[in-house]
Amino acid sequence: MQFHLNGFKPGDPHLVDAAGSAIPHTDAVPAQVDVLIVGSGPAGLTLAAQLAAFPDIRTCIVEQKDGPLQLGQADGIACRTMEMFEAFEFSERVLKEACWINEVTFWKPDEKEPQRIVRHGRVQDTEDGLSEFPHVVLNQARVHDFYLDLMRNGPSRLEPHYARRFVDLSVERGGDYPVTVRLERTDAAHAGAQEMVRARYVVGCDGARSAVRKSIGRQLVGDSANQAWGVMDLLAVTDFPDIRYKAAVQSAAGNLLVIPREGGYLVRLYVEMDKLGDEERVANRGITLEHLIAAAQRILHPYTLEVKEVPWWSVYEIGQRICDKYDEVPARAADLPRVFIAGDACHTHSPKAGQGMNFSMQDTFNLGWKLAAVLRGQCAPQLLHTYSGERQAVAQQLIDFDREWAKMFSDRAKQVGGGDAEGVDPREFQKYFERHGRFTAGLGTQYRPSVITGEAAHQKLASGFVIGTRFHSAPVVRITDAKPVHLGHVGKADGRWRLYAFAGANDYADASGGVRALCRFLEESPDSPVRKYTRAGQDVDAVFDLRAIFQQPHRALAIESMPALLLPRKGRHGLRDYEKVFSVDARSDIFDLRGVNRGQGALVVVRPDQYVAHVLPLSAHRALADFLAGFMLPA
Amino acid sequence: MQFHLNGFKPGDPHLVDAAGSAIPHTDAVPAQVDVLIVGSGPAGLTLAAQLAAFPDIRTCIVEQKDGPLQLGQADGIACRTMEMFEAFEFSERVLKEACWINEVTFWKPDEKEPQRIVRHGRVQDTEDGLSEFPHVVLNQARVHDFYLDLMRNGPSRLEPHYARRFVDLSVERGGDYPVTVRLERTDAAHAGAQEMVRARYVVGCDGARSAVRKSIGRQLVGDSANQAWGVMDLLAVTDFPDIRYKAAVQSAAGNLLVIPREGGYLVRLYVEMDKLGDEERVANRGITLEHLIAAAQRILHPYTLEVKEVPWWSVYEIGQRICDKYDEVPARAADLPRVFIAGDACHTHSPKAGQGMNFSMQDTFNLGWKLAAVLRGQCAPQLLHTYSGERQAVAQQLIDFDREWAKMFSDRAKQVGGGDAEGVDPREFQKYFERHGRFTAGLGTQYRPSVITGEAAHQKLASGFVIGTRFHSAPVVRITDAKPVHLGHVGKADGRWRLYAFAGANDYADASGGVRALCRFLEESPDSPVRKYTRAGQDVDAVFDLRAIFQQPHRALAIESMPALLLPRKGRHGLRDYEKVFSVDARSDIFDLRGVNRGQGALVVVRPDQYVAHVLPLSAHRALADFLAGFMLPA
Repeated sequence: MQFHLNGFKPGDPHLVDAAGSAIPHTDAVPAQVDVLIVGSGPAGLTLAAQLAAFPDIRTCIVEQKDGPLQLGQADGIACRTMEMFEAFEFSERVLKEACWINEVTFWKPDEKEPQRIVRHGRVQDTEDGLSEFPHVVLNQARVHDFYLDLMRNGPSRLEPHYARRFVDLSVERGGDYPVTVRLERTDAAHAGAQEMVRARYVVGCDGARSAVRKSIGRQLVGDSANQAWGVMDLLAVTDFPDIRYKAAVQSAAGNLLVIPREGGYLVRLYVEMDKLGDEERVANRGITLEHLIAAAQRILHPYTLEVKEVPWWSVYEIGQRICDKYDEVPARAADLPRVFIAGDACHTHSPKAGQGMNFSMQDTFNLGWKLAAVLRGQCAPQLLHTYSGERQAVAQQLIDFDREWAKMFSDRAKQVGGGDAEGVDPREFQKYFERHGRFTAGLGTQYRPSVITGEAAHQKLASGFVIGTRFHSAPVVRITDAKPVHLGHVGKADGRWRLYAFAGANDYADASGGVRALCRFLEESPDSPVRKYTRAGQDVDAVFDLRAIFQQPHRALAIESMPALLLPRKGRHGLRDYEKVFSVDARSDIFDLRGVNRGQGALVVVRPDQYVAHVLPLSAHRALADFLAGFMLPA
Repeated sequence: MQFHLNGFKPGDPHLVDAAGSAIPHTDAVPAQVDVLIVGSGPAGLTLAAQLAAFPDIRTCIVEQKDGPLQLGQADGIACRTMEMFEAFEFSERVLKEACWINEVTFWKPDEKEPQRIVRHGRVQDTEDGLSEFPHVVLNQARVHDFYLDLMRNGPSRLEPHYARRFVDLSVERGGDYPVTVRLERTDAAHAGAQEMVRARYVVGCDGARSAVRKSIGRQLVGDSANQAWGVMDLLAVTDFPDIRYKAAVQSAAGNLLVIPREGGYLVRLYVEMDKLGDEERVANRGITLEHLIAAAQRILHPYTLEVKEVPWWSVYEIGQRICDKYDEVPARAADLPRVFIAGDACHTHSPKAGQGMNFSMQDTFNLGWKLAAVLRGQCAPQLLHTYSGERQAVAQQLIDFDREWAKMFSDRAKQVGGGDAEGVDPREFQKYFERHGRFTAGLGTQYRPSVITGEAAHQKLASGFVIGTRFHSAPVVRITDAKPVHLGHVGKADGRWRLYAFAGANDYADASGGVRALCRFLEESPDSPVRKYTRAGQDVDAVFDLRAIFQQPHRALAIESMPALLLPRKGRHGLRDYEKVFSVDARSDIFDLRGVNRGQGALVVVRPDQYVAHVLPLSAHRALADFLAGFMLPA
């Protein structure tokens, strides 16, 4: 953490000074805002937390419920989500409270005695080196708490307005605040009172039955839901030995998924219930908690399950549905989008792969920096087209994956050597799980080339930083204090672009070496993106945060020989920032781990949402400038 | 973290339910308490946080200042202290905010041009494997904040009473509350008002000028302070390249120590100032901030130092003083101690080795569990004699170390090959630093054999768990969920004893193996300490927390085959605790790392303050029972 830049301030460094522009939280919703977020679930809060970092953006988030969530539904937190939490500065809180999913075990009917289940396999949950973070499980309500703390302590002092039902909206193109939203209060004291909000942008994060989605005439399309499942959080006593593992159980009596939960005692069971008819709703089946428990007990036989407390349970039908576009503008229309939808409002699927909450947060982490960049005049509003373009395509992949996965989960286990062609082979099931580990870790996303995602012409210079995928962090050593750190953790959710300059082997000693030449270009050239896009009065790294990584050990590198841009003076005192230059960590060399060309080095350009935008030669100054000119506006 | 044992509870698991016995915090100090703590510095707060874990103990902490500390003086946090913070559940907060000290660099006069300083050495600050935690630097005020949060959120809801001056105390042996303390309020609204508190025990954590110490007729004895030093926290611009390293500078113009601080910009400089005459006080020298800055600038020549802001500065004299006994009872008297002193009230020394705050907290971490055990009827009050016995002896070692270290720091650098016999050889200085790394990390403490520290007859069974030193954690894998964890981190500040049973190689399969036989003894024997010292209604692990560590990989170990004591049922639901059994972590085998005998295994008995009390054969049931009977009282 960096703090005290603009003067020493005692107390908790997470509690940032309120900006002069911060809007005091009032009972009434403000009449005019830059962004109105509808819904304070994971998607809405990720967006609100991102925008709250910019006190010059007026954000309002409204929520239909009366207050913060107490008991969440989602619980799985993928590696990729943990990486994002690190950008939001609360990964360590999640790591501490959460249950870690380290291995997955697989159970099937005993071949000799098919009424009994036996363990037939176990695999590591997340392949080594996939991410520096584990896959964990934590109540969604706690994730909300962390976001709410961040918003409350941030410069905007942002807090949700609860008890607001979204009624409708209208878009009148032309003015500064083209979207008018009608809300209705649902708190007892003001029930039925209407509020009108005018906004530059509206984002519907209001769930699978999204009223914002309906208001822009879009709908979820997909399979009908024909399989009922039950889910319950239990405090229970059992002799099933894998109750603290994620365990996929295929039994003669149906299927079940064990998800251990935080705190060491709580466990979630997903239990297969009835097949449903076409368009039949699960609510009509009258499935009770007692049915769920009885089904779980049958499936786990010969193991016992004695339920002591059920903090939460639900029944639901599985279906895979997706919206074809995530904003209100028809395909190929010239208009710029003003209303967006995100999260469950755009895509619904089974909870089995633990993707719902994670994917939803990635939606708005993608949208957040783009909205901020447009509102702050850094990028042209055409950038906003890329939100639906990028996120709808990757959601379609998720839906396809989930359809296959959910089907496997609902299938009977096939007997090995048994004659039945029906059902799924347990070994195939396990193999499918392993193959798709990268996807379920949230790391299957690759954005296609676009105005903000370069072509892979120079990908071979850094084969492990794949363009369009998230920047894969690795250990390095900071040369100014010999601290071992994770390079990717410099990428905070602050709307800045990162330029990671990996130096060629001879770069350090050579005055005309790649890193030094790049710094000279960025410092001095009239074409320099740093000069072109950074405003007077901003710190020199306010838009582009340049970091250099050398191949030499840190003791061989002298900070005093570095270009000024790598030891910049910042803030009101003009203090030096000593955290820009790194060397390899000898125990795990980032050049080896990520396939960076040792002779030439490479420049890796990373978006504010941690995705690799481009890989270029260090000397490709012109190409860098041209790429950024494709979507940025001169300061 | 373990939670939800007694039922699901939404929200922050750090916020524990208030106990029915918690005393609501009132404006007035309670008239009668079990323990009155005077002073809310690091020693007082460590003790208060420890006692706050036991709502059946009525604790009161008073502080002369008007409110919580905003700007601290101490800043260094040794590895050992981080291990203790882990027991108090806030190590991750410190790790995140603090500045890590990774390397130390050494500077001396340039031989060719003695007015210039040059770097002549650099060493790793903490030797590899010494602790799983780094040496860090963080404002003392933040450490206070973490303790205050813990106390406020704990079952006792304990908060300090500020603006109370300790006036005096009297001890009248015989009654239940033998100590009567007179306090005076210093807040404007009640200035001068007196309050009387009757206490079972009083602990003076009131600093070097301790009024509690004076009230029991003890004094600090030692060297006169004949060297003035200045210390200042700076936001500054410098071209001194090691400003983010801990750097010891010996120059022709005097000596200086650079301590980088949290946040990436702040730095502390300790600057050598004037020699003082016998009994001369530094206050009489009229040393100003400008003097300090000018001295620092002279010492750092040829590097520049441009000071932008000075959040805090001070001047002080170095002296090593210590109190001969830490309670009010004369040596060899029959009385049991009722009044204790801790921290700076007992020992003062230079801040150079970063020991003051750390050593003080270890004082009260030693005292806390003992007071709790006596007050809760678990141990006889004779146990309290061991506090002064243990802590005074190790403080004497610290004082001796610090005297030598401080002298080296104040000496001139000796020229290599120069004829002068005076001064310290810079290479010797660096070597001394390296040799004493273990001591400055807070890991030099070894308690001598006593009623609570066994003789080393079986030390060879686990040569790396040295009796009398702190339990040195190492990585293991929890078998019920394959989570890689640090074994020592199960040792929380909850007053419980840990029994680490390291299994012999053939133990797992053998029904009469060492671990299984030990469990049978602890579960069934009338001599079992678990049966003898655990009260009806308490969880089976409420006094002794048994953990087993097997040599096999976790996939080879079946939890269902473990003795009941390793899978105990707890809490109001009788839920199973799945966190008692571990296997080796193949990447760093704890048996190898700590020299545990692979054939026989070993039983390592660890005190509530994380120090190794005994190492025994697994089969030494009788010896274990006898050792514990030496100081524990039957339930």
